[in-house]
Amino acid sequence: MKRVSILGSTGSIGKQTLDVISRYPERFTVEALAGGTNIQLLMEQILRFRPKKVSVASKHLAEELRLHISGVDVLYGDEGLTEIAACTDADFVVTAVVGSRGLKPTLAAIEAGKTIGLANKETLVSAGHIVMELAKRRCVQLLPIDSEHSAIFQCLNGEDISRINKITLTASGGSFRDRSRDELHHVTVHEALQHPNWSMGAKITVDSATMVNKGLEVIEARWLFDLPYDRIEVVIHPESIIHSFVEFVDHSVIAQMGTPDMRVPIQYALTYPERLITPAQPLKLWEIGALHFRPIDFNRYPCLKLAYESGRAGGTAPAVFNAANEVAVARFLKGDIRFLQIEDVIYDVLASHETVSSPALDDILAADEWARRQASAMKTPS
Amino acid sequence: MKRVSILGSTGSIGKQTLDVISRYPERFTVEALAGGTNIQLLMEQILRFRPKKVSVASKHLAEELRLHISGVDVLYGDEGLTEIAACTDADFVVTAVVGSRGLKPTLAAIEAGKTIGLANKETLVSAGHIVMELAKRRCVQLLPIDSEHSAIFQCLNGEDISRINKITLTASGGSFRDRSRDELHHVTVHEALQHPNWSMGAKITVDSATMVNKGLEVIEARWLFDLPYDRIEVVIHPESIIHSFVEFVDHSVIAQMGTPDMRVPIQYALTYPERLITPAQPLKLWEIGALHFRPIDFNRYPCLKLAYESGRAGGTAPAVFNAANEVAVARFLKGDIRFLQIEDVIYDVLASHETVSSPALDDILAADEWARRQASAMKTPS
Repeated sequence: MKRVSILGSTGSIGKQTLDVISRYPERFTVEALAGGTNIQLLMEQILRFRPKKVSVASKHLAEELRLHISGVDVLYGDEGLTEIAACTDADFVVTAVVGSRGLKPTLAAIEAGKTIGLANKETLVSAGHIVMELAKRRCVQLLPIDSEHSAIFQCLNGEDISRINKITLTASGGSFRDRSRDELHHVTVHEALQHPNWSMGAKITVDSATMVNKGLEVIEARWLFDLPYDRIEVVIHPESIIHSFVEFVDHSVIAQMGTPDMRVPIQYALTYPERLITPAQPLKLWEIGALHFRPIDFNRYPCLKLAYESGRAGGTAPAVFNAANEVAVARFLKGDIRFLQIEDVIYDVLASHETVSSPALDDILAADEWARRQASAMKTPS
Repeated sequence: MKRVSILGSTGSIGKQTLDVISRYPERFTVEALAGGTNIQLLMEQILRFRPKKVSVASKHLAEELRLHISGVDVLYGDEGLTEIAACTDADFVVTAVVGSRGLKPTLAAIEAGKTIGLANKETLVSAGHIVMELAKRRCVQLLPIDSEHSAIFQCLNGEDISRINKITLTASGGSFRDRSRDELHHVTVHEALQHPNWSMGAKITVDSATMVNKGLEVIEARWLFDLPYDRIEVVIHPESIIHSFVEFVDHSVIAQMGTPDMRVPIQYALTYPERLITPAQPLKLWEIGALHFRPIDFNRYPCLKLAYESGRAGGTAPAVFNAANEVAVARFLKGDIRFLQIEDVIYDVLASHETVSSPALDDILAADEWARRQASAMKTPS
């Protein structure tokens, strides 16, 4: 029986993780859940999965939750999140909170020796060197839940990773992939949230349209698979059927494919190295008819270029890239800036940042905070 | 140092095997070579690779060869072929002769405990149950060299094969894939030999156009991967970039891809489980632009249907399917029958065959010989 805790249980990945768990009650129990502000959904999850501890965003919400639920420890805030991550009997922690808030609890879970199902990409983006070193020292496995990294991980099963030539992450191109750059000046939030292939949260859907998401994945892949940036490529693949692939030194390529369904990579992480039945639709290539591929145009997707640049710069640069983007996306979602100004915000914050090399966790958190202040304060022409 | 013998060294696979070997002189030596009638090429191979034994098709050719070459044992005929397969110091035998002539020497090589690089598909088609049982008893590995089976083999690396849902072999569709059935009545030998993607021998190129080749691969896969026929599918994929793929129970699909170059699967078999650099062109999906897939229409490709039927019938039926096809293709290549009559010959021979269940080797060889006589004698309307 695997005991699982989920950070971000009311989000898209969290809900799908619970869906996977509910199909295998003989294999999994839920030890603890951390939600955010969706108390109603969290209550349903508590009644159904009976965790011992839960955590919510604020003290106020915790008090409200305690009025309705008994027999469970109710915690809150960043401290609550970290306790859910590290201070339970869980063997396995799914880190599915969005953004750099996931960093500290993920480190706490690794320190506590939990196997990690990693869906929070900012953890490796901001502090890859610290996270990987700690995981190595604590002999903790980081199992990727992102579809792209899960794909690479599946392709490497049984292979000698020193024989990799390069890996290629596929990108759907996001909600605006068929529009030119000129057509992006006045796109709306509503339009940005219409992802063609995947049903995901708002932030990641915008990140998909700007390719920031792919940029974060490139940086994450650099750490997960210990590869230099010139061995990590991106190709646009509108159908999102090939989730990513690996080219070996013999020029043989192994790819992982499937109908887009996050429950497959989630379950693979939970059951690795086993494979069990999922409710995902089987892939019928002859019904799809064709898979398309286009090269990446960095002029069309400058945020991806910025991601590679900050990844190569290293130190605090990726944390700043990520934090600036988080604020910029939040500002876009509330109508404060326009879509193309997301990249302006990231560019300007990165340009004014003095990168700290080999940063300690505090340096990273300070850079993250600094970048958020800069990105919030930045004036943008309307 | 791996000591290699090659059955069929002057054919397409044999030549490419020697090309692979020539790139890694520190890893491979050539122990023995069996060619057919191309004495000139065999002499060049002997001078370059210095085998201890060679074999040719006939006594006459052996005598001719002895006039020009010294310091090497020159053998001939089926006995020579079997001696090359089994009576040398080789660790590894590549069985790349075409047709059911490969069966006896392959069995001899397995009996002698050699690791097999299997490029002769008729071996498993005709006598799968005998070959697999012998390989198991002698603890001999059969490493596939066919691009499709090598692809499946690579996809299964590190995986639990009991978790396979199904495997799918891709088929280019051959030289006539864009023609309707009606357009096939008067196609010429020359047209049949223009394969769109692969440069191969004449017999296999015709088999590709009729889909007999894919049918033989389906039967071969049944034995190599121990799967029932309803878990082996075929899809038309004109670009031949995805060489085949495996769907697991979680509906995750692992595919092997690459530019069409037989040196990749040949080398993979020779160096397994290692991967070394090959001269194959790297795959650039964004240059190719699109990969296409079409369902198999058994009315368009009745030979594939016959292959499944004879595979399911089992016993001597697959050997008869294969032998009838070999004769039919030879008759087509010398202008004796028309392209669509290949399927008529196979159909008629199979229809008049009484299948022997669990046949011994002699039963298989007798059925093979009977089928050849039938197929040769069969009158076809001109």
